[in-house]
Amino acid sequence: MQVFEKVESEVRSYCRSWPAVFTTARGSRLDDETGKSYIDFFAGAGSLNYGHNHPVLKEALLSYLAGDNIVHTLDVYTQAKRDFLQTFHDVILAPRGLDYKVQFPGPAGNNAVEAALKLARKYTGRETVVSFTNGFHGMTLGALAVTGNSMKRGGAGVPLNNAATMPYDNYMDGQTPDFLWLRSLLEDSGSGLDQPAAVIVETVQGEGGINVATAEWLRGLQDVCREHDMLFIVDDIQMGCGRTGPFFSFERAGIVPDIVTLSKSLSGMGLPFALTLMKPHLDVWEPGEHNGTFRGFAPAFVTATAALEEFWSDDEFTKSVDIKATWLDKELDQIADAHPELGLTTRGRGLARGLVFEESKLAGLTCKEAFEGGLIMETSGAEDEVVKFLPPLTTSEEDFELGIAILRDAVDTVAKEHA
Amino acid sequence: MQVFEKVESEVRSYCRSWPAVFTTARGSRLDDETGKSYIDFFAGAGSLNYGHNHPVLKEALLSYLAGDNIVHTLDVYTQAKRDFLQTFHDVILAPRGLDYKVQFPGPAGNNAVEAALKLARKYTGRETVVSFTNGFHGMTLGALAVTGNSMKRGGAGVPLNNAATMPYDNYMDGQTPDFLWLRSLLEDSGSGLDQPAAVIVETVQGEGGINVATAEWLRGLQDVCREHDMLFIVDDIQMGCGRTGPFFSFERAGIVPDIVTLSKSLSGMGLPFALTLMKPHLDVWEPGEHNGTFRGFAPAFVTATAALEEFWSDDEFTKSVDIKATWLDKELDQIADAHPELGLTTRGRGLARGLVFEESKLAGLTCKEAFEGGLIMETSGAEDEVVKFLPPLTTSEEDFELGIAILRDAVDTVAKEHA
Amino acid sequence: MQVFEKVESEVRSYCRSWPAVFTTARGSRLDDETGKSYIDFFAGAGSLNYGHNHPVLKEALLSYLAGDNIVHTLDVYTQAKRDFLQTFHDVILAPRGLDYKVQFPGPAGNNAVEAALKLARKYTGRETVVSFTNGFHGMTLGALAVTGNSMKRGGAGVPLNNAATMPYDNYMDGQTPDFLWLRSLLEDSGSGLDQPAAVIVETVQGEGGINVATAEWLRGLQDVCREHDMLFIVDDIQMGCGRTGPFFSFERAGIVPDIVTLSKSLSGMGLPFALTLMKPHLDVWEPGEHNGTFRGFAPAFVTATAALEEFWSDDEFTKSVDIKATWLDKELDQIADAHPELGLTTRGRGLARGLVFEESKLAGLTCKEAFEGGLIMETSGAEDEVVKFLPPLTTSEEDFELGIAILRDAVDTVAKEHA
Amino acid sequence: MQVFEKVESEVRSYCRSWPAVFTTARGSRLDDETGKSYIDFFAGAGSLNYGHNHPVLKEALLSYLAGDNIVHTLDVYTQAKRDFLQTFHDVILAPRGLDYKVQFPGPAGNNAVEAALKLARKYTGRETVVSFTNGFHGMTLGALAVTGNSMKRGGAGVPLNNAATMPYDNYMDGQTPDFLWLRSLLEDSGSGLDQPAAVIVETVQGEGGINVATAEWLRGLQDVCREHDMLFIVDDIQMGCGRTGPFFSFERAGIVPDIVTLSKSLSGMGLPFALTLMKPHLDVWEPGEHNGTFRGFAPAFVTATAALEEFWSDDEFTKSVDIKATWLDKELDQIADAHPELGLTTRGRGLARGLVFEESKLAGLTCKEAFEGGLIMETSGAEDEVVKFLPPLTTSEEDFELGIAILRDAVDTVAKEHA
Repeated sequence: MQVFEKVESEVRSYCRSWPAVFTTARGSRLDDETGKSYIDFFAGAGSLNYGHNHPVLKEALLSYLAGDNIVHTLDVYTQAKRDFLQTFHDVILAPRGLDYKVQFPGPAGNNAVEAALKLARKYTGRETVVSFTNGFHGMTLGALAVTGNSMKRGGAGVPLNNAATMPYDNYMDGQTPDFLWLRSLLEDSGSGLDQPAAVIVETVQGEGGINVATAEWLRGLQDVCREHDMLFIVDDIQMGCGRTGPFFSFERAGIVPDIVTLSKSLSGMGLPFALTLMKPHLDVWEPGEHNGTFRGFAPAFVTATAALEEFWSDDEFTKSVDIKATWLDKELDQIADAHPELGLTTRGRGLARGLVFEESKLAGLTCKEAFEGGLIMETSGAEDEVVKFLPPLTTSEEDFELGIAILRDAVDTVAKEHA
Repeated sequence: MQVFEKVESEVRSYCRSWPAVFTTARGSRLDDETGKSYIDFFAGAGSLNYGHNHPVLKEALLSYLAGDNIVHTLDVYTQAKRDFLQTFHDVILAPRGLDYKVQFPGPAGNNAVEAALKLARKYTGRETVVSFTNGFHGMTLGALAVTGNSMKRGGAGVPLNNAATMPYDNYMDGQTPDFLWLRSLLEDSGSGLDQPAAVIVETVQGEGGINVATAEWLRGLQDVCREHDMLFIVDDIQMGCGRTGPFFSFERAGIVPDIVTLSKSLSGMGLPFALTLMKPHLDVWEPGEHNGTFRGFAPAFVTATAALEEFWSDDEFTKSVDIKATWLDKELDQIADAHPELGLTTRGRGLARGLVFEESKLAGLTCKEAFEGGLIMETSGAEDEVVKFLPPLTTSEEDFELGIAILRDAVDTVAKEHA
Repeated sequence: MQVFEKVESEVRSYCRSWPAVFTTARGSRLDDETGKSYIDFFAGAGSLNYGHNHPVLKEALLSYLAGDNIVHTLDVYTQAKRDFLQTFHDVILAPRGLDYKVQFPGPAGNNAVEAALKLARKYTGRETVVSFTNGFHGMTLGALAVTGNSMKRGGAGVPLNNAATMPYDNYMDGQTPDFLWLRSLLEDSGSGLDQPAAVIVETVQGEGGINVATAEWLRGLQDVCREHDMLFIVDDIQMGCGRTGPFFSFERAGIVPDIVTLSKSLSGMGLPFALTLMKPHLDVWEPGEHNGTFRGFAPAFVTATAALEEFWSDDEFTKSVDIKATWLDKELDQIADAHPELGLTTRGRGLARGLVFEESKLAGLTCKEAFEGGLIMETSGAEDEVVKFLPPLTTSEEDFELGIAILRDAVDTVAKEHA
Repeated sequence: MQVFEKVESEVRSYCRSWPAVFTTARGSRLDDETGKSYIDFFAGAGSLNYGHNHPVLKEALLSYLAGDNIVHTLDVYTQAKRDFLQTFHDVILAPRGLDYKVQFPGPAGNNAVEAALKLARKYTGRETVVSFTNGFHGMTLGALAVTGNSMKRGGAGVPLNNAATMPYDNYMDGQTPDFLWLRSLLEDSGSGLDQPAAVIVETVQGEGGINVATAEWLRGLQDVCREHDMLFIVDDIQMGCGRTGPFFSFERAGIVPDIVTLSKSLSGMGLPFALTLMKPHLDVWEPGEHNGTFRGFAPAFVTATAALEEFWSDDEFTKSVDIKATWLDKELDQIADAHPELGLTTRGRGLARGLVFEESKLAGLTCKEAFEGGLIMETSGAEDEVVKFLPPLTTSEEDFELGIAILRDAVDTVAKEHA
């Protein structure tokens, strides 16, 4: 690993938790160069909902590339983009009664967030965006300003402004009625909160610690937005594409955001790809007003199209996620119950799950033990107190059971040796 | 094209200049769905220096994908990343006596710029960054603040601050000594310019109109940075990877920037990929202080490694670019000389060339005519007065001659019909 | 009044409520040019705690001016400044065990606030300042950023940043424990609140609607500041100089702010004068780092010194304010009780009192009626729903009764004609 | 002086140059507590154009105060304000064909500047204000952002934004045509300068080092403003009220700014007082949108009115300033010529004059020597390299000669002992 340590910047991070050199990967498994195989309950931080190298997607990609089809296209029209747009319209938007316009804002999730925030500010002529405690939206200056994590904010080197942080669902442990603070500020012309352009929210906060907003809370938030003329932006980068069951994580709450961001699992195979969706009347962009080199990475269109066709043509996939989620939830509860001395609790929605440790450092130790046992997981939350589960949605029963067994052993070991 | 117009956002742009649906592409040629073939003198805005679907890179990519090697990796260690780092070190850094640390800041050029600016501010504890007239660095808020274009800046919806614009080389037509204004501000404690963290500059401004900084000017700028304790950032996203001849566009000026950004042609095949290079003492990042989902897109490592090995193991490629550049320069001069009535001038370095029209709208009309003749080119400059040439560096003599012939006809037509 | 309407800017405001041209004034009385006399329950928004033209202060001022003593002094040493500093030390600071250093930041309250905020940011190296809903601190950009009123904020024309608004005492009607939100943000490294430099607060919000912070809340706030290493700034511009009884409005809460601002009644006769007090270790200013033309307006030193000697050498004045406050409180309660149909409530501390109308427009109508009856009062609060009482602290029993009688009639009239 | 050192903040400044305790003052003389008399060539940094305690103004003030006329009035109508507005209209505005509306923005010059900047931003809906190298406009955050001095800017503790600094007249020693840089930025949509709301400028920079803008430059600047739709703000706080001869310092340049700020000598006796003047169509303030406690300090209206009547009813005063200026200019030139070894130069307009030392520290030593000889002067300029002369405009021939004699001795001593 010498070359990494010598040449790569100190900013590198996940490699410090998982000191292995990975080579091949299929489904929910990945291998390191020594031949050791791991169960992956992390899935590229939610970027591999369909697993590593899904054969259908891979085939589509290989075929596209082998045919000398165009790869890099800025935002010209291509057959690959047409297929994607048509499929996204037919498979995702139309059946859900959504008429979003689609922007390709650049390859990364932060590009989708930056475009969403710029559009909201341009459309409303206002500057402030309401964000939420422990929200995570990206590392570029606009996205970082609506991100909660203080270490990451500190990296900006300039004050992060034009944003106002509000309590996420249940942030104050039920000691305050939902939206009391936000509504008070909005309804009081002396509050010091300038009329916001928009609200940006995740339905489940992955990086923030698998904090789950209830459907009631999300509907309530949409109501506040409608009543106070703020655009409602859902950042569905991590929770979209089926992570919580339906394609959009907000569907079951019965809400319709004004702007939606998608990325991570959208390409289906981990290719950089992001979308900003907006209601048609919000599409006030000038041509080229937001641009970028990798807006039209055709291979991502191809695998995304294949993924939409493979998984979203009917509701079977969503049903399977629901079943797996119920099973995983029960398993995690059992682990929690088995260790009353650790004060474990569980939370989550769909296949975004968290095992929360009373003593935060034990979460990290559990991940470390699990890694040695052959299971990839990461912590999240402001104190890294949550073991986060983002397994591929396609994980087989066998791999799930294997992974949970490793986890169970890891928790046992930590309970024995560290608690 | 109905689906594009119905579903895609109004922000789409290049497709308005080139109303075709593209399908396949090889080298300097691309085809549309009607079977028409085009010479590409645009190369993905400089992202395809080695042409479309270069067979060696494509082979490496297909082989990697076919082998179920890992695709999406955040910033874990992989064989693909090791190979890239080792090759980048051996082929690029070491022979040039450079000891940069390498950061993978995300897939897009703007990620590389944002990381560079954040690091410069964090390292120095200062906020202001000096940028230059007509500079272009990206659409995210941090990068946009150092970008000149007013239409794109207007899209921010918030004031873009912590930046100070300075005159690029020859901006004031030789009526002011180089750096007189910048030095005056820096040396005068009453100037109102807060001590900057850094300077960010392109050696040739592509989007800004193929404005070329001389070696003397770049050395002068480095001197100002050294004397006034500012970090010197070269944004080599568009001009790097051989566009001007050598791998880094700044090599021949004899300068060594403190921070360098790379992207566009780095992956060699148009895959989203970006780097931020920094002198080792500047690598003060905390682990994870800047992160992102697509920092470790392994296929880009693979094609980038193949490209470095294919093109940069010796200096033959640079020599070939130099020869082609001389030829292209001469051809463009001849076209300019043939039309004194258009007041044409040419400028550029390497294979980044511009044909500047006195009457700006004629540049756009020329591109339109050329497109109809089967040649892809775009305008640039604040008034879109420059026809910009960024052909693949691998363009064959035959394709070059064909392209120039189409261009010549286009200029003739424009001269006849519009001038 | 033609010249006013023709020449003075539309920004003029109080004159629209009180359409008279005033001439002479003594104690709690002022006269207009038609000879009509008014009881003043407004006292220059709290700038005339000792009444208009108090004979002792006036005598000191006339004697100083008649003697050709120096008037304008920037920040040179003068006899007048020495006397003030010595008296302020001996009469105010020393007996209270306070060792504040004294800065003369300029003539206006906003100068005192700007100096306080600059110092807090410089000392801590942080940018964010916590302010409170309905706080009022001034119209200059730094002070305006911590002021709540949306109309006044809108006048800035730029985003007001580097501030975070928090709920003032009882802002959410007891539905949330005190400081739950602020503490949650401070204790959660993922909250999105950057570590603040300071908190700025009024003990009673005059402009904000006579909102009263309890002693418990103020002590709690000081605790939060101490625990989280934030400087604690009390803006005592309106509530200091005896308005609530003691010289500093925070004395009885048993707190000791790190920085205190004073102005308004400090000069005693309405002369522009302001102070920023800071604990000695915070006095990290460079000489001249904050300056200003009217920092040393000697006549204000003279009247301020006379006022300190006249009113603050013992505790008699405070006792008299307490007695008057009890009386006024009872009177206002009786008026409220007499009109159950108006839903009146009262609140306040010392001689800062408010009569709150359920239907906000009735507050303005009451002031209008009172003015016609010969009583000067103003509304405050975000909806102008509060009739605000800031009578001179020296108001005689007779004038108080006269004023209350006029008020009673005004409320009766409003109840009869408008409710 | 113990009490000052013990109780007053370290920010105190002028007192460090002039370690005396001043007591009485008349005309161009002031006395310290030891009875030593000084000639004052500083005049409260230009706040005492009519000298200390001018008998006519003093009489008006004493009479007003003795009559129990109202002192503190917020912005209600008073007889004193009416007289001032009428006189200002009749004596200043009407004869010059000016129809400015008058705003009382608060007692300090920075209040006038903050109001001007807020209004310009509100009116135009833009944020950026163009300021100039070595400009000085005040210490509050809005005014500080357009002030050049780096030490004072550093005191802000937050980035100072929404401003762009441009070269003042002759800043680059004639090596660049006037406005080439500013015009280039404004005319180039890729320059990175966002369309400014306004330009703010001093006609002579006092604090900045007695830098004099020529009439041609000022007219050129007005032309740039008109052509590019920017409001033209002249900050006449230090150079107005006759300092350069005419009442407004810009009159002789034949320009008519859109907004003008006045303060310092406006009250005539050093009382805190400031005005913001605006062309009528710019008066888009909401009532109360900008407010402040000491907007209506009636004694300042009274002395200001008396000063207007005494000095500005005809053009005799301007003529006398012109004569004195010619004389002072010649005297300073002679001193400069007498010491070729010091490389002295002189500059200035009217009675704002500077003696510029090649070796900057000698300027301070000269002031120190002069102080010991009984003459009050200060340095200015970014390096404190300029001895600044701002004598009262009423200085008698005798006092002028006495002061110049002391200066001559001081320069001789410095030349002998330090050069």
